[in-house]
Amino acid sequence: MALKGDEVAKHADAKSCWVIVHGKAYDVTEFLPEHPGGQKIILKYAGKDATEEFDPIHPPDTLEKYLDKSKHLGPVDMGTVAQEAKEEDPEEEARQERIAQKPLLEQCYNLHDFEAVARRIMKKTAWGYYSSAADDEITMRENHSAFHRIWFRPQVLVDVEKVDFSTTMLGTKTSLPIYVTATALGKLGNPEGEVVLTRAAHTHNIIQMIPTLASCSFDEIVDARQGDQVQWLQLYVNKDREITRNIVQHAEKRGCRGLFITVDAPQLGRREKDMRSKFTDPGTKVQAGLTTDTSQGAARAISSFIDPGLSWADIPWFRSITKMPIILKGVQRVEDVLKAIEVGVQGVVLSNHGGRQLDFARSGIEILAETMPILRERGLDRRIEIFIDGGVRRATDVIKALCLGATGVGIGRPFLYAMSAYGQPGVERAMQLLKDEMEMNMRLIGCTSIDQLHAGLVDTRSLFQHTNSTPADHLSTTVYDPLAVPVQRPKSKL
Amino acid sequence: MALKGDEVAKHADAKSCWVIVHGKAYDVTEFLPEHPGGQKIILKYAGKDATEEFDPIHPPDTLEKYLDKSKHLGPVDMGTVAQEAKEEDPEEEARQERIAQKPLLEQCYNLHDFEAVARRIMKKTAWGYYSSAADDEITMRENHSAFHRIWFRPQVLVDVEKVDFSTTMLGTKTSLPIYVTATALGKLGNPEGEVVLTRAAHTHNIIQMIPTLASCSFDEIVDARQGDQVQWLQLYVNKDREITRNIVQHAEKRGCRGLFITVDAPQLGRREKDMRSKFTDPGTKVQAGLTTDTSQGAARAISSFIDPGLSWADIPWFRSITKMPIILKGVQRVEDVLKAIEVGVQGVVLSNHGGRQLDFARSGIEILAETMPILRERGLDRRIEIFIDGGVRRATDVIKALCLGATGVGIGRPFLYAMSAYGQPGVERAMQLLKDEMEMNMRLIGCTSIDQLHAGLVDTRSLFQHTNSTPADHLSTTVYDPLAVPVQRPKSKL
Amino acid sequence: MALKGDEVAKHADAKSCWVIVHGKAYDVTEFLPEHPGGQKIILKYAGKDATEEFDPIHPPDTLEKYLDKSKHLGPVDMGTVAQEAKEEDPEEEARQERIAQKPLLEQCYNLHDFEAVARRIMKKTAWGYYSSAADDEITMRENHSAFHRIWFRPQVLVDVEKVDFSTTMLGTKTSLPIYVTATALGKLGNPEGEVVLTRAAHTHNIIQMIPTLASCSFDEIVDARQGDQVQWLQLYVNKDREITRNIVQHAEKRGCRGLFITVDAPQLGRREKDMRSKFTDPGTKVQAGLTTDTSQGAARAISSFIDPGLSWADIPWFRSITKMPIILKGVQRVEDVLKAIEVGVQGVVLSNHGGRQLDFARSGIEILAETMPILRERGLDRRIEIFIDGGVRRATDVIKALCLGATGVGIGRPFLYAMSAYGQPGVERAMQLLKDEMEMNMRLIGCTSIDQLHAGLVDTRSLFQHTNSTPADHLSTTVYDPLAVPVQRPKSKL
Amino acid sequence: MALKGDEVAKHADAKSCWVIVHGKAYDVTEFLPEHPGGQKIILKYAGKDATEEFDPIHPPDTLEKYLDKSKHLGPVDMGTVAQEAKEEDPEEEARQERIAQKPLLEQCYNLHDFEAVARRIMKKTAWGYYSSAADDEITMRENHSAFHRIWFRPQVLVDVEKVDFSTTMLGTKTSLPIYVTATALGKLGNPEGEVVLTRAAHTHNIIQMIPTLASCSFDEIVDARQGDQVQWLQLYVNKDREITRNIVQHAEKRGCRGLFITVDAPQLGRREKDMRSKFTDPGTKVQAGLTTDTSQGAARAISSFIDPGLSWADIPWFRSITKMPIILKGVQRVEDVLKAIEVGVQGVVLSNHGGRQLDFARSGIEILAETMPILRERGLDRRIEIFIDGGVRRATDVIKALCLGATGVGIGRPFLYAMSAYGQPGVERAMQLLKDEMEMNMRLIGCTSIDQLHAGLVDTRSLFQHTNSTPADHLSTTVYDPLAVPVQRPKSKL
Repeated sequence: MALKGDEVAKHADAKSCWVIVHGKAYDVTEFLPEHPGGQKIILKYAGKDATEEFDPIHPPDTLEKYLDKSKHLGPVDMGTVAQEAKEEDPEEEARQERIAQKPLLEQCYNLHDFEAVARRIMKKTAWGYYSSAADDEITMRENHSAFHRIWFRPQVLVDVEKVDFSTTMLGTKTSLPIYVTATALGKLGNPEGEVVLTRAAHTHNIIQMIPTLASCSFDEIVDARQGDQVQWLQLYVNKDREITRNIVQHAEKRGCRGLFITVDAPQLGRREKDMRSKFTDPGTKVQAGLTTDTSQGAARAISSFIDPGLSWADIPWFRSITKMPIILKGVQRVEDVLKAIEVGVQGVVLSNHGGRQLDFARSGIEILAETMPILRERGLDRRIEIFIDGGVRRATDVIKALCLGATGVGIGRPFLYAMSAYGQPGVERAMQLLKDEMEMNMRLIGCTSIDQLHAGLVDTRSLFQHTNSTPADHLSTTVYDPLAVPVQRPKSKL
Repeated sequence: MALKGDEVAKHADAKSCWVIVHGKAYDVTEFLPEHPGGQKIILKYAGKDATEEFDPIHPPDTLEKYLDKSKHLGPVDMGTVAQEAKEEDPEEEARQERIAQKPLLEQCYNLHDFEAVARRIMKKTAWGYYSSAADDEITMRENHSAFHRIWFRPQVLVDVEKVDFSTTMLGTKTSLPIYVTATALGKLGNPEGEVVLTRAAHTHNIIQMIPTLASCSFDEIVDARQGDQVQWLQLYVNKDREITRNIVQHAEKRGCRGLFITVDAPQLGRREKDMRSKFTDPGTKVQAGLTTDTSQGAARAISSFIDPGLSWADIPWFRSITKMPIILKGVQRVEDVLKAIEVGVQGVVLSNHGGRQLDFARSGIEILAETMPILRERGLDRRIEIFIDGGVRRATDVIKALCLGATGVGIGRPFLYAMSAYGQPGVERAMQLLKDEMEMNMRLIGCTSIDQLHAGLVDTRSLFQHTNSTPADHLSTTVYDPLAVPVQRPKSKL
Repeated sequence: MALKGDEVAKHADAKSCWVIVHGKAYDVTEFLPEHPGGQKIILKYAGKDATEEFDPIHPPDTLEKYLDKSKHLGPVDMGTVAQEAKEEDPEEEARQERIAQKPLLEQCYNLHDFEAVARRIMKKTAWGYYSSAADDEITMRENHSAFHRIWFRPQVLVDVEKVDFSTTMLGTKTSLPIYVTATALGKLGNPEGEVVLTRAAHTHNIIQMIPTLASCSFDEIVDARQGDQVQWLQLYVNKDREITRNIVQHAEKRGCRGLFITVDAPQLGRREKDMRSKFTDPGTKVQAGLTTDTSQGAARAISSFIDPGLSWADIPWFRSITKMPIILKGVQRVEDVLKAIEVGVQGVVLSNHGGRQLDFARSGIEILAETMPILRERGLDRRIEIFIDGGVRRATDVIKALCLGATGVGIGRPFLYAMSAYGQPGVERAMQLLKDEMEMNMRLIGCTSIDQLHAGLVDTRSLFQHTNSTPADHLSTTVYDPLAVPVQRPKSKL
Repeated sequence: MALKGDEVAKHADAKSCWVIVHGKAYDVTEFLPEHPGGQKIILKYAGKDATEEFDPIHPPDTLEKYLDKSKHLGPVDMGTVAQEAKEEDPEEEARQERIAQKPLLEQCYNLHDFEAVARRIMKKTAWGYYSSAADDEITMRENHSAFHRIWFRPQVLVDVEKVDFSTTMLGTKTSLPIYVTATALGKLGNPEGEVVLTRAAHTHNIIQMIPTLASCSFDEIVDARQGDQVQWLQLYVNKDREITRNIVQHAEKRGCRGLFITVDAPQLGRREKDMRSKFTDPGTKVQAGLTTDTSQGAARAISSFIDPGLSWADIPWFRSITKMPIILKGVQRVEDVLKAIEVGVQGVVLSNHGGRQLDFARSGIEILAETMPILRERGLDRRIEIFIDGGVRRATDVIKALCLGATGVGIGRPFLYAMSAYGQPGVERAMQLLKDEMEMNMRLIGCTSIDQLHAGLVDTRSLFQHTNSTPADHLSTTVYDPLAVPVQRPKSKL
């Protein structure tokens, strides 16, 4: 017999805390202190239906996996659960209006356009999570800016009637030298989550990297795979290595074809835009200084299991537990690329985690331009596959990376934005736009296949120049009180 | 006997599609699938008068040349053609008001001014075609910006009473070291089209390059020539080489004195501003995602005949079919200049097609500064004439190019804007302004003739520095959500 | 028997000038010409209560120390002192409203945020004193900007579970490699003044440098010390060396553990924002040109005792009068660091005085990057402790300085702003935020203790590039009248 | 017997053209075609009183000198001259209001401030003449910007109690290493003209350079000299060398102590802001294209006599006609400095004429930094005095120039602006501010006399970097139509 709403509602504090998720009640009283996101957020829903808040942050199998069966209290008669009178929310009303006036998908002509639309129509907190980055977000923006310091030296009068930009990554043939890189919490942007990306990737024959911190469960994402579609696994290494072993071996069994171990996130970043977007004003009655809001944004909440002790010494163990190629994701200097070759992994991703971790980390493309000449000098450039991600918005960005020696290029946020703005058709159009640009620009640079791209086609002399005007230092500029010239005097009152 | 409007109006769909152009009806049903601009645009005018839309895009001999005589249905009694009730168009009304308040021609003091006026008074779609460029329009703007990184080292105390800035290009004496370069679709800016430029070029004794994609027919433009005026031919090479041979040999016969083969456009560019300006909102009743607008802007529509297979191997054939000097237009690196010398052409234009093709292609002036020292080193600098185009707005820009070794400098958009804003007097004033600036600045740099200009008069040390603050990355800056400082809290309601 | 207000009020001009401070009257007639801040400011309060104006500028023991006992006229019956009818001041009203709507302390996520809040709620003149700097304030802003030209080369796969960022400066163990540097006039920001900083520094186990120009007396600040908290003394050297000797030996006796002699301020700077904020319009009846306002801002007023004759020759004398380590604060080129080593001091602070002295002095971080390679080359890098200050806002800034060889980093204005905005909790939160950032970023750069930081972890290639776009040249940009394009003509009146 | 107004009014066209100046009538009919400023401007005043327009452009002795006595028609009874009903001019009314609310002189704290005030209160045309420069005004702004790319390396712990910044230029002792450089048409800014500058220069013991194109006559300016005040002569060389000889020898006789021959102006510059400010709209009834406005701004009007044939060959002649030291004003490259030494002149001014001649000419300070090392290398640095001008606004700018080897620094526009805003007290305050800054900054850089300044005190590594973000390219940025993201769709009308 289903529980009644008023019964659940009695368990509404830390002493006895029940919550409803997807029509079932759970007793989370004992779990409260262990909740990675803190007690506060659960207590907000104590005695109530928490589904809407729960969903984007937790894969559906979370309660099964982590809450003892004895705490599963069974179904609730949802008709008896008191509907919370939704407060009027002028911000939400304005958002709904913006959604109603959303541009047509056909009006999006490039990857930036999806970001513009997503920013208008996403919930503030979801936008805050996706769009935020570390500290002053200098690195996040530098990632794209860096491409603007590389210029082309195209060759002309080459027969470019037939252009083929398919390529091979980690042994997999793919239609484009890009892949969908791992990004967390897909359901913040779309109620279906990461499977939307899976389906769009299939449409365009593009590889998808499955994130550890997906909103969908790993198996849901694998189940969404079609035909001979290829997926990789992105891994945050758990302090408990048995859990990690299970994840890796399960992924291999389910057909994943590459293991991308994240090495740039021993702790997940402070992202102030995210934190600010989550701040809830306790109202005007509370006196300043009395409340303590320890919220650190979504990233911290979901990542407490990550092992900051992961080190080079762990790599042989990974090689021992899987036959998947191993790629280190987040390498940031040539010295560590050389070490990666030494320890025998198959690849590295030169990446700063989309600017979400260490601000003033350099862009992947700059590290690439530093790395490849040294590898070539030592005859090591064929020993490893080098990927980069971060800031890619145009096919020209992809081509620049490939000219400089990358095997492939990861794209993350743009697909999230396309999904948030237009769902699967949005992601598919984003991929199609990249293909259109790719075909055009391969022709214009005078190459008909990926292997013809080489460093002589780009001018990188300015890449390493970081004058500090771009990306702009917004906070410091905002708080600076600029010098003024003398003001006019008041009018005489006579 | 003339056809009646209602009769034509019956043929208003893909099954039977008639259109009226300049008072005559044509059956284009069978031609629909072949139309380079797509069926959609024709079907919009099926059964109706298409003259206004037809004119700027098609030279007047188009229907004669490409539509079988049997499809020419003869004159229409235009009095019987239903006038479309023009919808009220507040945008067009505002434009008409701006036209009424247009500044006097005398108020234009430099080439930028014409662009400012043209932008205000041109139709949005026409402006979109002229002003747009590839991707983020970085290269288009870099073309002008690059000149701003070159500074003068003028010499003083030279007798500069008499200044002569006439020069010789491809054997032709001309009054100024500039020429009117080829630009497409002149009738978008002025109902008379390219002949306006021909006449203004005659007034000032300046060479004109005739575009393949002119709105006027080639012969109309040649017919507009006066006295010993000189014209060159710009050529897009057709997949059907016989067509190309006919065009080239006809041009030579009609007196063209140079053949400029475009080599930077195996496919015409994606220009998003143009695409966006052509987008027509199907209205609020259509649901997002259902329509498919495949419009790719005017450039794609008119260029499907261009041969992407054109290569170095074709050059000897061109030399065999004409005695005109051959110049490769769109060369973008010194390696290809060296090849051009090797294959024996008479010149190259260092150009990126006004930034309309490959974004992040470098400016002509930068390629020039890279090229000339290498040619001089190898004793090749007199073997070929080097032209540049792109971004030229001031006589100082021209002088910089000549100091660095250019024979002449092409100017395109500025003359189109002058024509669009003020017709022939506009173009003539633009040319006169350049002459005024030229005289002044030759004096100020301490030279009295073109051959005295040399590399020691300019400082190019900063030319190769591409920091990424300029040109601005507009899209990426627009979509970026800048960090904010804490907001004030709401007023207490007490 | 207490004096009456009307009696005091009779002495209201230069011939006989009494003022009330903290309920006591003083005859300052003879002192007027000697007042470092000029007579004018005292005469404004002649015959009246001057406490509010007096307090932030003068330590409480000032009158005791500098005014002869005979001029102490004793207590005033404050009930008899006429209350000045406060004029309506719309600026002050708006400020009070801004204070009422101040964000919660929890909404401050970084050091910039405190500056944003302080700017809104501080009195204009107080803000003017704290925030101003020399001339065009280029150096002040460059101090922070310079950090933005340094990028990280983080190492990955290092076990960073345990991170320790405590360190030792001048023999003192401290929890963070930063210290609270000396800043003047703390009571402008908070009625309690510098002791607020003392208490917060204790909370976080951070060293405080006591300023010569504090609003609190030296002893008050020392008295506020708790436990084994460590303080240093910042010293402006008095022309009268006996006064200086007394200050130094008193400080040593009271337990100060370092003597920081300011060497970059033989004269205190002109700070135009400060001067402008102090300007009082004499009203519309005064004719332009007739008044003479000689105000030079607060800095000049309080610093007339500083000895511009201080030189290297004085250093041995300092070494003879104290056993405290001696550090030269404000060294600005490597040549002077070498001299400092030669004369045997224990440290230098590479600093430009927060940009408040010589505009276009380089940032401390740039001088550091210039200095350390030369010291290392000569084997002198362990002979002296090098500190820097100026522009530090982020833990990444601190880490960059330490990678380049600094022992510690001084932070001044940010703590003043935090204190002005939120008092002691504000300063404590600012310090906590730095610790949070420090832990995160030590992990992300792959180091677990301060001694692991080294120059290979940063890329300083762009540090020495000063293109002039940033910091912006506000005044010159403001007064420049930009070129315009032609304006539209007026509407015809027909 | 005085003429009546109505009699004069009859001579109101080109056939018979009389004008009234300072109460006397003149017949200028025959002079019309010779008027350097064109006939049009005179005809506007034919038959009327032209005094107001005449005065700023012509020294008072102009009519005496250049109009035959027979054309002097004698006094006019001014009471009979019809007063022109002044049209309501809302622009002028707004200006008068701005004048009424002008800040007090005491509120000007630096040289920029005067420019801000002058811009508000000067007539548009006068402001247009003073503030304008060549083409895009890049060089004008670069002149100041260049100083911002030079940074200090100050030395500390130097006894700077006594600072002396007097120096010697061309044998003259002066209180400051600056001089008032020659600028034309002083009466546009102040009815008294250049003598205002003479008097202020006397107050501060600063040298004044007398301009050829002054509003006051040469003798008026010399007559205004007091005590042992020193003046120099700036010379535009007349095509008629006898006129030049007379000017030079008269100046020498009247005590001028230096002859500055302008060598950067064979033709006076096109200044579009000036031209635009002079444009008068003929009203809405005139059709576009019909009028011809040949106005080229004030500069062209007054300079037609300048000899563009002046060359190195003329220098010996100058040496033969005067004993004054000869200085070439406007030298712009080291090669020409070497030539100047060779021909035996006493000095050069490295200058680009305030950016008013050749745009993209480099700044004087950059040329200085290029020149001095080469002179030193060749042992020539003591053979000649090197001056610079352009963009100087701060004492730090002056100090930078002196560190790099300049003998003195010319300042022009800032004194004009100070004069236009506040008359003689304004100029005096401007000079005093420079002295205040000078004293402060000499101390802060650690030098007590001018001869201690040396190149080791500045860091010029960035001086030669001209990235093109600053100065901004206003016109090109204004006319550029930036890319946009998709717009929202209209609201559904349902």
